[in-house]
Amino acid sequence: MKKYLITGCSGFVGRHFVDYLEQRHRECIVLGVDLQTPRVDLDGYRHVRFSFAQTDLLFQDDIESVVAKFQPDFILHLASQSSVAAGWKRPVETFLNNTNIFLNLIEAVRRHRVTCRIISVGSSEQYGNVNETDLPLSESQELNPVSPYAAARSAQEHLATVYADGYGLDIVLTRSFNHVGPGQSAVFVVSSLVKQMVEIKRSGRERGTVVAGDVSIVRDFIDVRDVVAAYDLLLQKGVSGNIYNICSGAGVSIRDVIDRIATQLCLSVDIETDCLMLRPLDSKIIIGSNQKIKEELGWHNTIPLEQSLKDMITFWEARSGCAGTL
Amino acid sequence: MKKYLITGCSGFVGRHFVDYLEQRHRECIVLGVDLQTPRVDLDGYRHVRFSFAQTDLLFQDDIESVVAKFQPDFILHLASQSSVAAGWKRPVETFLNNTNIFLNLIEAVRRHRVTCRIISVGSSEQYGNVNETDLPLSESQELNPVSPYAAARSAQEHLATVYADGYGLDIVLTRSFNHVGPGQSAVFVVSSLVKQMVEIKRSGRERGTVVAGDVSIVRDFIDVRDVVAAYDLLLQKGVSGNIYNICSGAGVSIRDVIDRIATQLCLSVDIETDCLMLRPLDSKIIIGSNQKIKEELGWHNTIPLEQSLKDMITFWEARSGCAGTL
Repeated sequence: MKKYLITGCSGFVGRHFVDYLEQRHRECIVLGVDLQTPRVDLDGYRHVRFSFAQTDLLFQDDIESVVAKFQPDFILHLASQSSVAAGWKRPVETFLNNTNIFLNLIEAVRRHRVTCRIISVGSSEQYGNVNETDLPLSESQELNPVSPYAAARSAQEHLATVYADGYGLDIVLTRSFNHVGPGQSAVFVVSSLVKQMVEIKRSGRERGTVVAGDVSIVRDFIDVRDVVAAYDLLLQKGVSGNIYNICSGAGVSIRDVIDRIATQLCLSVDIETDCLMLRPLDSKIIIGSNQKIKEELGWHNTIPLEQSLKDMITFWEARSGCAGTL
Repeated sequence: MKKYLITGCSGFVGRHFVDYLEQRHRECIVLGVDLQTPRVDLDGYRHVRFSFAQTDLLFQDDIESVVAKFQPDFILHLASQSSVAAGWKRPVETFLNNTNIFLNLIEAVRRHRVTCRIISVGSSEQYGNVNETDLPLSESQELNPVSPYAAARSAQEHLATVYADGYGLDIVLTRSFNHVGPGQSAVFVVSSLVKQMVEIKRSGRERGTVVAGDVSIVRDFIDVRDVVAAYDLLLQKGVSGNIYNICSGAGVSIRDVIDRIATQLCLSVDIETDCLMLRPLDSKIIIGSNQKIKEELGWHNTIPLEQSLKDMITFWEARSGCAGTL
């Protein structure tokens, strides 16, 4: 029975990945590690034997001990401080909790000579500000990180490549684009917008104001359920040392996202720009090419943005009061 | 009177930089920080007011305190674990002692709003394995780090760029090529070769064996005294956020270096390859273009390799017994 080590397993993507394994009746052993305990019933799975070990990946001895004892076949490294905005506010913490934790993890695998495949999750933000003529961005596009978060992810990618090519570790890399889907924290823009508009609707109003940063920026949104399917495929079939974009291939502006949510909720919406949400150097437009993972591995995205938004609305509607940011 | 903060000041380049200021009668205040106390007479300078504070840059509070108190006009960040070979053996330590120490330093400047110019020293190793058609390498060449050391330096560069462009810090970046010159540690290949051959000569033999790694690799060697002149020029005139190659523009193989030292010492030399000195992925050939710093800032290299080797021979000849690696 295959053993999966999932870092950051208590987060948005981790929960969806374990659900994915369970839904596909994958008989397997999963050890989740995270700073926070997962908000799921550990005994609620039939096919996945799920256990959890609270672990701070910044402590090299701790993660080495976990890796050496568990001897995983697969490592899905999801642990990350993944908010670009938070990265600008706390750049050192963001660097540590992306690059250094990843380095500690792969060093643990190297030192203990564990034979396993690792997924190194990177970000579309690594591409930075690009020329429109370069769109959609392929994996051969030069990196141009323009935020602390993007610099941290680029460093992680370089380390992953060195450990794969130089030390022979089996590491498959991604550049994953902007996630959407039910259960996402409202610190991320689309989930925040859905939450705000669900609250307007709940209050009985037909018109309201949402607060956002720069709504003109264009992003390539991909549903988390398509993302975890890609990670599973990469664990099975990805080529070590290779980088794969995980994206929809389509660009949508934040303004357009607001319009689509408003339409689904039958709301009229005014937009208030929060200057504090404007970032020093935002990438204006990011759209990826998913040709490589489609053609080489047969992945395809299955959930249109409308469906993601619908499921996010349902998610936030089920949360009474919507207190906090999740 | 201008204040210089020099990190890694007890090292090879730090000593030469302070000597450079002194020789040019630069009336200034220098605070050196390093893990090791410098092996110089602190009171031996007439123009430079030199003081030292033992500091581990991995402790963010410590470097913040130094920066906030000293309020430097210039920061020359030389602290580094700069051996590519050591990087392969101790990748985590190498990453921490390149990337994380630099991040702690620039974060200290950002948090305390110190108005100063910072030199971020990068490495030619960041270019990685390149096509011969790309030689000599200009600053626009895409980075392709193939060693832990190169990955660490590339991460440092990305962080420097983000802090310059995103937070408005005044940071000038370099990609400095392989240093040579008197006083260099014998953990670096050319100094090791000179030391080995000086020892053969001292033993009275006319023929001997030197131990080296891959002698076919070609590097662009630049004398440390030309390097520190470039750093001084960049502190005065460099453009913030810009990257400058610091190199000779010429490539020489290790085998050729051995021949040149042997000629100067009138020795015949056999080469023994130490497999432990062969690295997983060595860049085969690295030659830089120094056109940018020459044309834009008027720097030029003045010390030919023959002179560097001559001065290195004199240096090692003066060390009786040559115990240790310096």
